[in-house]
Amino acid sequence: MIYADNAATTKMSRAAIETMVRHMNETYGNPSSLYVTGQRAKEVIEEARSEIAGLIGADPKEILFTSGGSEADNQAILSAAGLGEKEGKKHIISTAFEHHAVLHTLKKLEKQGFEITLLNVHEDGLVRPEEVESAIREDTCLVTVMYANNEIGTIQPIRKIGEICRRKGVLFHTDAVQAIGHIPVNVEEDQIDLLSSSAHKYHGPKGIGFLYAKKGIRLVNLIEGGAQERGRRAGTENVPAIAAMAAALKEEAAHMEENAAAMQAVRDRIIAGLEEIPHSVLNGDREKRLPGNVSFCFEGIEGESLLLLLDDRGIAASSGSACTSGSLDPSHVLLAIGRVHDVAHGSLRLSLGEDITDREADEIIAAVKDTVAYLRSFSPVWRDLTEGRKEFILP
Amino acid sequence: MIYADNAATTKMSRAAIETMVRHMNETYGNPSSLYVTGQRAKEVIEEARSEIAGLIGADPKEILFTSGGSEADNQAILSAAGLGEKEGKKHIISTAFEHHAVLHTLKKLEKQGFEITLLNVHEDGLVRPEEVESAIREDTCLVTVMYANNEIGTIQPIRKIGEICRRKGVLFHTDAVQAIGHIPVNVEEDQIDLLSSSAHKYHGPKGIGFLYAKKGIRLVNLIEGGAQERGRRAGTENVPAIAAMAAALKEEAAHMEENAAAMQAVRDRIIAGLEEIPHSVLNGDREKRLPGNVSFCFEGIEGESLLLLLDDRGIAASSGSACTSGSLDPSHVLLAIGRVHDVAHGSLRLSLGEDITDREADEIIAAVKDTVAYLRSFSPVWRDLTEGRKEFILP
Repeated sequence: MIYADNAATTKMSRAAIETMVRHMNETYGNPSSLYVTGQRAKEVIEEARSEIAGLIGADPKEILFTSGGSEADNQAILSAAGLGEKEGKKHIISTAFEHHAVLHTLKKLEKQGFEITLLNVHEDGLVRPEEVESAIREDTCLVTVMYANNEIGTIQPIRKIGEICRRKGVLFHTDAVQAIGHIPVNVEEDQIDLLSSSAHKYHGPKGIGFLYAKKGIRLVNLIEGGAQERGRRAGTENVPAIAAMAAALKEEAAHMEENAAAMQAVRDRIIAGLEEIPHSVLNGDREKRLPGNVSFCFEGIEGESLLLLLDDRGIAASSGSACTSGSLDPSHVLLAIGRVHDVAHGSLRLSLGEDITDREADEIIAAVKDTVAYLRSFSPVWRDLTEGRKEFILP
Repeated sequence: MIYADNAATTKMSRAAIETMVRHMNETYGNPSSLYVTGQRAKEVIEEARSEIAGLIGADPKEILFTSGGSEADNQAILSAAGLGEKEGKKHIISTAFEHHAVLHTLKKLEKQGFEITLLNVHEDGLVRPEEVESAIREDTCLVTVMYANNEIGTIQPIRKIGEICRRKGVLFHTDAVQAIGHIPVNVEEDQIDLLSSSAHKYHGPKGIGFLYAKKGIRLVNLIEGGAQERGRRAGTENVPAIAAMAAALKEEAAHMEENAAAMQAVRDRIIAGLEEIPHSVLNGDREKRLPGNVSFCFEGIEGESLLLLLDDRGIAASSGSACTSGSLDPSHVLLAIGRVHDVAHGSLRLSLGEDITDREADEIIAAVKDTVAYLRSFSPVWRDLTEGRKEFILP
């Protein structure tokens, strides 16, 4: 099988599994306990915290472990909103193509009287820093813009947005779930105040992630209870998963450049191959995109059927985000970059793994070409298009 | 080492580790994805859900996976409060010795205008159903009483409380974190509406738990985002941990009676041994307690010193709850059952594992006897007591 859905979740690395197993067997004490076994568990957590902090330019005290990226997004945004509310600032800026963990949290805040500005995303899948700047008002308490988009893979001008927010005195959060482990992220250089990450997107375990919160930002608790995580996140610490997350991230960081170069070459090979399909379009900027992301729309077909037939041929891919599959609505991301409904429905996301080969790329290209042609062969929409009863949207 | 802190966390079972490893290696697809690998992951989750539901007398649709017991407690209570608020009912009944995940969530609700009645717990560590009943008012929306206390191990009259709540039309939540896997729990027979559980308390993995919510109870989301868990808990499902939780619970359920009988015998042996220590007291009812719980107070010593010295002798124990260790305040549980500060400070909780032996029990008894005597030998409080400048509280 060619697994090309790494943006949905990745296979755990050998190092991560081994770390997990070692700690499941050995480090089972409760980190809040006084005895040696418990204290050893605490050390494991703090080593992981330091390691992760070091890899993103943070201080260990700025790293809070959560159950994943969604929890981190929720906590970051609600915290910034809470701080804003205290100063009478109830305006938040975000974008139309954020992950639902961000958008739905903003929706919740809207019901509580916050005003949300969702910036347009341009056809290239990029947010314009100057538009962020001009949207900032006296009462803006937070700007939240994702580091890299989960569907179309575009990498946002985070450093410029960070610089603007810092200058204007507005908190800046970024959902970096798709970025961490894949492209260099440094919270200090990028001037990020809050950042969310999820381990299973970079070969770590599921059920664990972290929230970076710059020193001085008081977080609100999503989960009340014990005094774990310096009182900001209750619940017995997930020691094995925390250690495995650090192991996975360390490995990804050590090989980031070579992995990116290798994936990028294969990515561009696939893009070139799929562009030969008539009436197709690459979604998102050609350069400013994640090394492993290929996102296309094909006119006249249904993305879901494409996926199912690719699966039959041993290729695991996605039409967009896994979190919304099962929904019949077209991707809000593709709509945000201006794809009309008909086109957005015919989407395909391939998110490559680090070990993808040219041979596999060619297999993917051939399979997609065949399958798109096959689906078009009995698509009534395609017939309307080719017989002139409808106009092509894509060239 | 004798690990006697199983109420804080347990060592994962062989079955749980094996299940976890198998799924970390094999079932890495995203359960929300359409392709076969993803659908297989979905099946694994649904099998686990059915298994867990079956073991507690619930319907699979009534089981929601969370990151653990604290999250489940928070979500259960906030959900019931939200439902109550809609009907103008803003009164909640609980007890003074609940876990902090419950108490702190209630504190949060108090700030939002809810009125909280915390029932007294009697010296035997038991809540009286008739006191629950007489505390129920027209505007009561929730009763939340833990199944078994985490420090003193007393098992509450849950079925009677459930019956009262059902009759009065008030939602009933129970934090069953210490009960599930150790004593029989059946949500239908017990007439429970909401129940929280955590896998690592019964040899499952950390970072996973579940919330049972009776059909028809609409939960509020703690974590907003994707449509996982039927829209009530966003975030990629922790497939390996969910499967391992089910494996652990299945194993515990299969051996529950024999495990309980074995532990109970050892428990009573230890209790008898420790009662020989003068000026000591068993905390909580002698019969209505978890099979593995031994909880004592010893006058004239500090529980923390006792723990550290026991650790030196290879015995891992606790003074009370792991979640609050590090705090200098005496246990709120011991205060709730009427222990005065001085006595509450000298506490010891032993929570036994299923494999505890008589030999280990005798080792524990000898070590505690020695250590209490040793600590008393240079305790100024003890000197005051024995030399008559202070009166003994414990006989």
